[in-house]
Formats: sequence, structure tokens, C-alpha cells
Amino acid sequence: MKAGVFRGERDVRVEEVADPVLRDPDDAIVRIVRSSVCGSDLWPYRGHAPWQPGWRTGHELTGIVEEVGDAVEHVRPGDLVVSAFAWSCGTCEFCRAGLQTSCVRSTYPGGADNDGGQGELVRLPMVDGSVWKVPDGTPEDRLDAVHLLSDVLLTGYHAAKLAGVGEPGIDGEPVRTAVVVGDGAVGLSAVVSAKLLGATTIVAAGHHAERLELAAQLGATVTTDLRGDELHRHLLDLTDGGAAAVMECVGTAGAVATAVEVARPGGTVSMVGVPRFVDEWPMGTFFSKNVAFRAGVAPVRAYMDEVGPAVASGELDVSAIASHRFTLDELPDAYAAMDERRCIKAIVVPE
Amino acid sequence: MKAGVFRGERDVRVEEVADPVLRDPDDAIVRIVRSSVCGSDLWPYRGHAPWQPGWRTGHELTGIVEEVGDAVEHVRPGDLVVSAFAWSCGTCEFCRAGLQTSCVRSTYPGGADNDGGQGELVRLPMVDGSVWKVPDGTPEDRLDAVHLLSDVLLTGYHAAKLAGVGEPGIDGEPVRTAVVVGDGAVGLSAVVSAKLLGATTIVAAGHHAERLELAAQLGATVTTDLRGDELHRHLLDLTDGGAAAVMECVGTAGAVATAVEVARPGGTVSMVGVPRFVDEWPMGTFFSKNVAFRAGVAPVRAYMDEVGPAVASGELDVSAIASHRFTLDELPDAYAAMDERRCIKAIVVPE
Repeated sequence: MKAGVFRGERDVRVEEVADPVLRDPDDAIVRIVRSSVCGSDLWPYRGHAPWQPGWRTGHELTGIVEEVGDAVEHVRPGDLVVSAFAWSCGTCEFCRAGLQTSCVRSTYPGGADNDGGQGELVRLPMVDGSVWKVPDGTPEDRLDAVHLLSDVLLTGYHAAKLAGVGEPGIDGEPVRTAVVVGDGAVGLSAVVSAKLLGATTIVAAGHHAERLELAAQLGATVTTDLRGDELHRHLLDLTDGGAAAVMECVGTAGAVATAVEVARPGGTVSMVGVPRFVDEWPMGTFFSKNVAFRAGVAPVRAYMDEVGPAVASGELDVSAIASHRFTLDELPDAYAAMDERRCIKAIVVPE
Repeated sequence: MKAGVFRGERDVRVEEVADPVLRDPDDAIVRIVRSSVCGSDLWPYRGHAPWQPGWRTGHELTGIVEEVGDAVEHVRPGDLVVSAFAWSCGTCEFCRAGLQTSCVRSTYPGGADNDGGQGELVRLPMVDGSVWKVPDGTPEDRLDAVHLLSDVLLTGYHAAKLAGVGEPGIDGEPVRTAVVVGDGAVGLSAVVSAKLLGATTIVAAGHHAERLELAAQLGATVTTDLRGDELHRHLLDLTDGGAAAVMECVGTAGAVATAVEVARPGGTVSMVGVPRFVDEWPMGTFFSKNVAFRAGVAPVRAYMDEVGPAVASGELDVSAIASHRFTLDELPDAYAAMDERRCIKAIVVPE
């Protein structure tokens, strides 16, 4: 069969390779009818990922099942299926919780070990857990759109989900105001998804007129091609001081800075593109594990009502944390003791 | 009166300053009975914050109200009150939502413009919104513990809240497994708070034997002083592959790396110390606005069930995102078109 093969920087070729065969009992062989190039395919293409010559390319695919292994239960030859860009068992703790990208057996199409999505055929492991059956009767001319379910559309959907669109905000009301930073395929998918999840104000920020026009067709209520401080001011103005949900769909430190700048206090910035920046920060680990990062100054006035009574009554005894006492005149000593880690907490009693 | 005054690096003095007087109608004058030195006070002390000589020090205070302005409704002379380290109006959108640190009139004790917490008296603006009344009859010997409500205890509580302790995790069950990285006053407060919010496995990681012993007294079920990879392996082992809630209470990039390393997929890392690292990342803005950052690879297999039917039926028309078509033989052109941003999304049709 023919398949895409990585040969080096900006050198992807279509080569003749061996046809795949069933290997494990939960495998299927799928004849690909749609594939595509993803933004993240460009990282090895541009030489920014440690790929080796000979690796197979592509992780987005839709196809017709030709053959299945003995253990396959839910997929039959002839089925038209969309494959998730990450293959997963469908039965482990994480798959059951809807976080299939953290499947304990997770693997991806393409690379050193698997057939890629850009080719004629693919051996598709764990097929029961990895594909979605296209409903019977779906017209042929809708297949390009359906194929977007393999990655980009639902990556945009993840952006909207993570940002909390439609979920209760800090005021308890569903979040209805969303900003999408970026007008690429993920950004456009985030716009569609924000609308789907109930956003009523959707601002799309980008730099390409024709894509912003498309964003408007897909659900953006406002579009803007401003940049820098002008963009920040405009977005803050449009959202009355910031949007509770901001989707960063560019993947640069600058775009993240814009996103948090225009986020409403207590809101969320989501990012769903493979991160390739910020060396000193473990971004890749946050990303691959879908771990949220919540940094913030404590609204202690709110918490006093919750925790104060138990402390005052002695039911909650935390006095050991108040480890050392100083008079006000001894304040310089109190600082030195804290600075030199000689005490856990320096309490100062004026007299 | 006497008050702490910043004079330069590692030079905090107790000086004679003017007694405060009422200025605005929502002010109170409060006689301080407890103050303290906070970890964040050490940043200017160490010369790491742009402080000017003459600025007042301290933001943690408990005291007795001596005098109130005409507009004060809920606080009376003689009341014993704990002040939040951030003063807030109590009535704006953010105060009502429990995010008083984002109050539209927010201001802090100390610095250039306000009396500090480390002194004998303080003019306390917006007193109705900024203080918590200590219940009548609270014994004098509990005052050090009660004073911890001004900052550190509830900053640790914020760490546990942000990390989602006791809230439903990705499996829908309340999060009961928590890791606290750091054994300082905030870390110890996070341990207490995790217990308060229902954690049943609480691992405290630190480097000081006596503080870890205190952590155990306060609720940690396991303590460890391991470091580096050994620490990671131990924590992953103790938590069967990671904790859904991890509280970073050190405030270094290394501690964040440990935190995310030992977080369970789909979990949360919280950070509540004033961040002073990671230059290229807008950490201060995330922190001051309590904006969550959620980066993650999309579990598209889960979302296919939610969104797929509408795409297949045509109810949701996203075909415009699939902007360009290529044959498999044209795959190199498809990459070039994506690389050069000539198309939104390159669809590849094998034949």
C-alpha cells in the first residue's frame, strides 16, 4: 500500500510500504477514506520534534473496516468509522471516566511503531475503544465534516469544555461569554463548540480576514483583528472587564498572555494545542495528563465564615502553626527568624 | 504610635509614626492585638520586590475596633476582629461571588498608602467588607490561632479548595487523596484544610523533620522527606499512580514540576504562594486574578458520542473548516499548504 513517511525536515513522502495484517485479537484492519494534516504534524515536519526518518505520518483517519480480530465485539467489516487521534482500550479507569488520552494502554497512530493515518490502510489496535461508528445513511458529501471528529473539531470542543463554557461561573450562573484567541482550525472549532455549549457572546480574535469571516458564520458574535494592547482593551471592553472563558488556540506564550489578560477574575484560560514553548515550566506534563493548574491569591474574607467558627471554638486546633512569638519592638528579629527559617510562623504581639 | 517601616534590604525597623485618623466614612480605627510576618513579607525584605524606604510593613492583623466612620454598619467600637490580608468592599460583583481579592476597590494593608499590620493602630478602610468578628467568649489563649485566619490558614484552605479536595473528580467521586508539597506554614495549613474538606489520604512532602511531625499531628496520613525522582516514585506509589489533588506550597518551578509529576491524570495542581519565578509566563496575572489554566490533550473519543450525531446529520455544519482537499499522492503539497498557512485544514482523500 501507499503511506506517508517522514524522511526529514520538510520532507514527507508517499512511499510503498507493506500492507498491514492483524496482530492482536483486538485489532482491525481499516481502509482509509479520509485523512488530514494536523497542526501538530507540522512540528516534526519543521524539525521541532525528535522524529526519525522512516516513521509513518498522520494521526487523523476515517475509514471502512475490512477485517477484525477475534476479540473485537462492537465493530464489524463494512463499518464506516472515525478513529480518535489517540487509541485507547475503552475499559480502564481513565477511559471509563472519559479521559481516553490517559488510557493505560494509550498509543497513537503513526511514528515508529504504528501505521499512520496518512495512507491507504491501517492496523488499528483496540478498535472497540478507539473508533466511533458513523451512523448509517450519512451522506457521502458530509464525510469531510464527519472526519473532523477525529481531532480538530473535538480539540476545539475540549477547549470550550476546559474553559467551562456553559458551566456555573463564580457567581453560580452558566458561563455565557467566551473569547477565542486564534483563527486557525482549532480556534474555529472552539467557536463552534462554544456556541454548542451555550455561549451567547463569542469573540474571535485573529489576523486573517477570511478566517474571521468564517468564525462569524460558525457562531462568533464579534470578530477582531486588533493586536497587543489595543486588542486587550477592546476585548476587556466587549466583555465588560473580561470573559469567564478564554480559549487559547494559537499555542504561543504571547497568546497565553493575551488570554489571561482578558480573562475575568475567577475565570479559566484553556489551551489545547500541543505546547512547544516555556522551557522552564513543565507544560508538556500538564498537557499530556490534562492536569489543571489553579494559582491564586486566597479570598480569605470568604473563607473566614466557613473556617473561623471552628478555630475560635477550638474544635479545629491550629495553634501549633503559630510557632513563635515576638513583641512589636522585636519585629526585626521576627523577620530574621522567618528569613532564616528558624520559625514556622512569627506572631507579633504589640505589647 | 509605633509601626514597622521598610528601610531597605533586610532592614525593617520599628519607628514612631503618626496615629491614624478616620478619613472615609467606611473606615475604622483598629488597635492591633496580633500581627505576624508572612512568607510574602520576605520578598521586599530580601530585596526581591520594588519597595521604597518608608513604606509600612505587614498585612496580617487582628485587633479591637476603637472608632468607626458614619457609614459603617456591621462593626462597632469594642469588637474584636480579624482583618483579611486583602481589604474589600463586600458588595461588588466579585465580593458577592466570594472572590474578594478581585474586589473592584481592593487594597492591601501596608506599602505606600496604607497603615501596615505590623504596628499599634491601623486605619482600616471598607471595614464592613474586610473583617471577620471573633465570636464573643473566645478565650484569650486561642487568639494566636484565630489570628491565622488573617492569611496563612485560609491560604492553605484556598490551596485545598482550588485543588478540588472533596469535590467530584473525573470519576464523579469526591476527591479524597491529596498531596501537599512543602512543609512551611502554608503547607501545614493546606494539610489541615485537606482534612477539613474530606481528604482521607494526605501525603505531606517536606525537608524538616519537626515540621513533618507537626504535619502528621495536623492530619497528614503519610509524611516523606525524599527528594527528586525518589520522591516522585514514592508519591506515585503511595497514591496508586497519582493524586487527584496536589497542593504546591513551596513556590518554585521545581516544586511545580514535582506537583504535576505526581498528579493523577485529570487532576489539579494548585499554587497559592505569591509566584516569583518563570519569567516568560504571565504567572502573576493568573495568580492575582485567580484564573485557572487548563491545558490538555483532547479526549476526542469521549466527545464523539456527544457531538458526532449532530455533525453526521448535518444539524451542525462544520464543513467549511475542512477547507482544502488533496489526494494521497499530493500529501507533500498538503503539508506545504498547512506549513505556509495556505489552508485552514488539509483533507487527504486516498483515491
